[in-house]
Amino acid sequence: MQTLDSSVSAMSDRPLTIAGKTFNSRLMTGTGKYPSLEVMQRSIAASGCEIVTVAVRRVQTQAPGHEGLAEAIDWGKIWMLPNTAGCQTAEEAIRVARLGREMAKLLGQEDNNFVKLEVIPDPKYLLPDPIGTLQAAEQLVKEGFAVLPYINADPLLAKHLEEAGCVTVMPLGSPIGSGQGLRNAANIQIIIENSGIPVVVDAGIGAPSEATLAMEMGADALLINSAIALAKNPVAMAQAMGLATQAGRLAHLSGRIPAKAYATASSPLTGLINV
Amino acid sequence: MQTLDSSVSAMSDRPLTIAGKTFNSRLMTGTGKYPSLEVMQRSIAASGCEIVTVAVRRVQTQAPGHEGLAEAIDWGKIWMLPNTAGCQTAEEAIRVARLGREMAKLLGQEDNNFVKLEVIPDPKYLLPDPIGTLQAAEQLVKEGFAVLPYINADPLLAKHLEEAGCVTVMPLGSPIGSGQGLRNAANIQIIIENSGIPVVVDAGIGAPSEATLAMEMGADALLINSAIALAKNPVAMAQAMGLATQAGRLAHLSGRIPAKAYATASSPLTGLINV
Amino acid sequence: MQTLDSSVSAMSDRPLTIAGKTFNSRLMTGTGKYPSLEVMQRSIAASGCEIVTVAVRRVQTQAPGHEGLAEAIDWGKIWMLPNTAGCQTAEEAIRVARLGREMAKLLGQEDNNFVKLEVIPDPKYLLPDPIGTLQAAEQLVKEGFAVLPYINADPLLAKHLEEAGCVTVMPLGSPIGSGQGLRNAANIQIIIENSGIPVVVDAGIGAPSEATLAMEMGADALLINSAIALAKNPVAMAQAMGLATQAGRLAHLSGRIPAKAYATASSPLTGLINV
Amino acid sequence: MQTLDSSVSAMSDRPLTIAGKTFNSRLMTGTGKYPSLEVMQRSIAASGCEIVTVAVRRVQTQAPGHEGLAEAIDWGKIWMLPNTAGCQTAEEAIRVARLGREMAKLLGQEDNNFVKLEVIPDPKYLLPDPIGTLQAAEQLVKEGFAVLPYINADPLLAKHLEEAGCVTVMPLGSPIGSGQGLRNAANIQIIIENSGIPVVVDAGIGAPSEATLAMEMGADALLINSAIALAKNPVAMAQAMGLATQAGRLAHLSGRIPAKAYATASSPLTGLINV
Repeated sequence: MQTLDSSVSAMSDRPLTIAGKTFNSRLMTGTGKYPSLEVMQRSIAASGCEIVTVAVRRVQTQAPGHEGLAEAIDWGKIWMLPNTAGCQTAEEAIRVARLGREMAKLLGQEDNNFVKLEVIPDPKYLLPDPIGTLQAAEQLVKEGFAVLPYINADPLLAKHLEEAGCVTVMPLGSPIGSGQGLRNAANIQIIIENSGIPVVVDAGIGAPSEATLAMEMGADALLINSAIALAKNPVAMAQAMGLATQAGRLAHLSGRIPAKAYATASSPLTGLINV
Repeated sequence: MQTLDSSVSAMSDRPLTIAGKTFNSRLMTGTGKYPSLEVMQRSIAASGCEIVTVAVRRVQTQAPGHEGLAEAIDWGKIWMLPNTAGCQTAEEAIRVARLGREMAKLLGQEDNNFVKLEVIPDPKYLLPDPIGTLQAAEQLVKEGFAVLPYINADPLLAKHLEEAGCVTVMPLGSPIGSGQGLRNAANIQIIIENSGIPVVVDAGIGAPSEATLAMEMGADALLINSAIALAKNPVAMAQAMGLATQAGRLAHLSGRIPAKAYATASSPLTGLINV
Repeated sequence: MQTLDSSVSAMSDRPLTIAGKTFNSRLMTGTGKYPSLEVMQRSIAASGCEIVTVAVRRVQTQAPGHEGLAEAIDWGKIWMLPNTAGCQTAEEAIRVARLGREMAKLLGQEDNNFVKLEVIPDPKYLLPDPIGTLQAAEQLVKEGFAVLPYINADPLLAKHLEEAGCVTVMPLGSPIGSGQGLRNAANIQIIIENSGIPVVVDAGIGAPSEATLAMEMGADALLINSAIALAKNPVAMAQAMGLATQAGRLAHLSGRIPAKAYATASSPLTGLINV
Repeated sequence: MQTLDSSVSAMSDRPLTIAGKTFNSRLMTGTGKYPSLEVMQRSIAASGCEIVTVAVRRVQTQAPGHEGLAEAIDWGKIWMLPNTAGCQTAEEAIRVARLGREMAKLLGQEDNNFVKLEVIPDPKYLLPDPIGTLQAAEQLVKEGFAVLPYINADPLLAKHLEEAGCVTVMPLGSPIGSGQGLRNAANIQIIIENSGIPVVVDAGIGAPSEATLAMEMGADALLINSAIALAKNPVAMAQAMGLATQAGRLAHLSGRIPAKAYATASSPLTGLINV
């Protein structure tokens, strides 16, 4: 495993900052779909992530198989990102966000006002409702939340949410859990170019190459859950996603070569010896 | 920077083996196009590579600006891969391969019979000649070389070269230096599925995401030069390519999720609390 | 030029029906950017289209170079689709829609209540505002308009607009005039699968292959302007787009073969003669 | 159905010329895999094609279900392109080519020396052997054949075949019958740019959009069989492919707009009325 060359460190990448809080890792993960809590714990560690999102409604119920999920994570090290998965309307999402804040406090994160806002009326594609999401965001911002809304990759909606006081936007690459990669890359690129707040690509990333690509495009961070938890070897895939995120971020800062229509010799043809 | 989780190490990836020689890194780099020898040295180190290809004809001439290139690399640590860049016919390539073997011996690698075989009649696209490449490969194998031929991604040609005794095949992703990525992915996939020797994707990779993708597809290794040497920050890009190669290899071994037409909730909707 | 085989006619494609009005052609065009009115006239004819969109604000002003545009089209044959291009807010768009209705009546289409609704605050990407578009649509439906809203490819927004009483949705393939093709194909596919009203792909189509692809995916119709008007030969490109639209529609109805990972012989290998 | 605008005809596209013989249609089809001879006949008519390829080995045997295939086509109107499907070596292909010439003569095409050369050792991917194909082509040219070789999209191989006297090259888009489309588009583009003989894209086209795309790229003609014969409605799909080929050719001649990173208003924003 390589170590950081001093000149690279000298590029002095700024840390990811969301609502005034800084993070070294640009990969966020989740807790759903793992074969066991133990695999979840080891995967989170292998990914190097510092933010983990938790479905408030599921954790609160201690649904069968999920007992102790919240306790299985060391919240002294990992920042909790409560999410409103399972909410179909703005009203539901607002109520669940409030429960999430309580949950974070109970688990020791007194100053955690983060909420990943999901308003998803559609059970087949799990796509977010732009209207309900904006309404809920406006209310939650008023209540002092640091709102991270999950959205379809609509640049104008992203701008509305930024103006409403959200602390990131989280456009989807493709539908949740589909593993289809960046099907909305053109719009995500426009969002990145125009955003004054961090852009976190959320949902759809199926393989590390797609994680790297999203970071190369200039995304500030990624949230990946299914592609890790449902891989044949989640722990190894978690590490692969962590490396891929770093590779993409480094590449974004390093200035890639432009693609050219024609070839250019790696070994110039001048000064050849005669043979 | 994450460290390897024990269970991942336990996957015990086999090292890359070419002609009986083993390598831990699956990224190969080159020496061309760097802004300076010092940047080249630091980039090679940052990439973590163990094999570096050298254009025999250029090194032999000590062309202006390239004095000391061969001496700038620690051949006690790095395995030399002499290449026949600049050769338009089988005959030329055979003669340059022999010179390359001498060069490796002079620089202390007595047992190095490797040659990256390039037969490139075309100066615009720098695409290899399948007929001349096969002829030269057959002759060089007879002379005891470990031949790594650079080829267009033609599965049948790859099979001919394997039958001729080559130790790898090196299909191109897209023309040399073009940075267009994997424009031949479908054929490369077929080559990988059918090859009994390592498949090294050579040429065309422009960004780490493409390196990761090639490794996810099952390539055994990559050779990347222009995308590193011509990046704005070559040292950082070299490291990014090293991380990306590792991420792709890990992902290949970890079993990625299949892409699905529809969404699947990360957070199952059963057992939701009422709010 | 082929003629329709009787069995194809027997497939008896239903005509495109929007707000109770039926059309045989599934290609709509525009009036902007043509080198001359005469080329516009011939291009419209060559395309075979039956609906032409007109920017109300531009026509009303008789801006230099555009005098007589409205009179240059035979509104006895072509159905006018007034659009609200140039409107940045819902309020502006509503006012311009009313002007458009007046314009249609003055030009002889007494019963034409159609309006292509564009609410575009952003001058760089020309992307539509989902919030303003929905607000304007709700108002215009109340006033009896047949509203065809131009939208980013957001399936939930499309559903809101359908529920608001719009008669089509017009998702964009890529930004207006960019000629980038179907950069939002995944979302457009979801919109098509879920829509109870015609889906018209609007903006971004740069070449006939992209027109064919959109129709193969099941789009009900296309609106293409820049790719025709700015082609080197607009009249020939108009015809190409007309043929491409037909080809895509026929293919959608004909049931394409699935893509397969491996090959299948066109000529089965059983029963071969010995040679 | 539109008719040709006079100015388009005035572009006076040159007909497709192969070995001195001219054709108005740029779509070639085949005879394999149809549900019945009658559907084959109607599909060939609906496609508008003037060249049909026939597998010599299959026709000669009158294999069950294929009796009368050769007699089912009006060879007074359709030019026969005998192919060597089922041949794994150069020697077999040469023998079958000679049989094909006899067959064409028996069916009334005295001056037909065309042969579609297929040398395919691999039964899974049905990919052609570059070495065997070149050998067979050289021999068949000596014997006076007009040779149309089926090849992997290798620009250097294409050049060798042109130099050997072949009358076209037929690069594959993707494996035969796979319907994967143009997976080798980058290489096909290079072949087109460098070829002095017609380039016919053969194999892999699964939908009309891909046919249009290949023609837009500048291919001189297409050969499509499986995507027509195995469609749910082969006759309608044949017509769709014919229209798509025409659309792509027209577009190639018409000069498409370049793709742009940003949007351009169809309706310029100057001269807007106040509302």
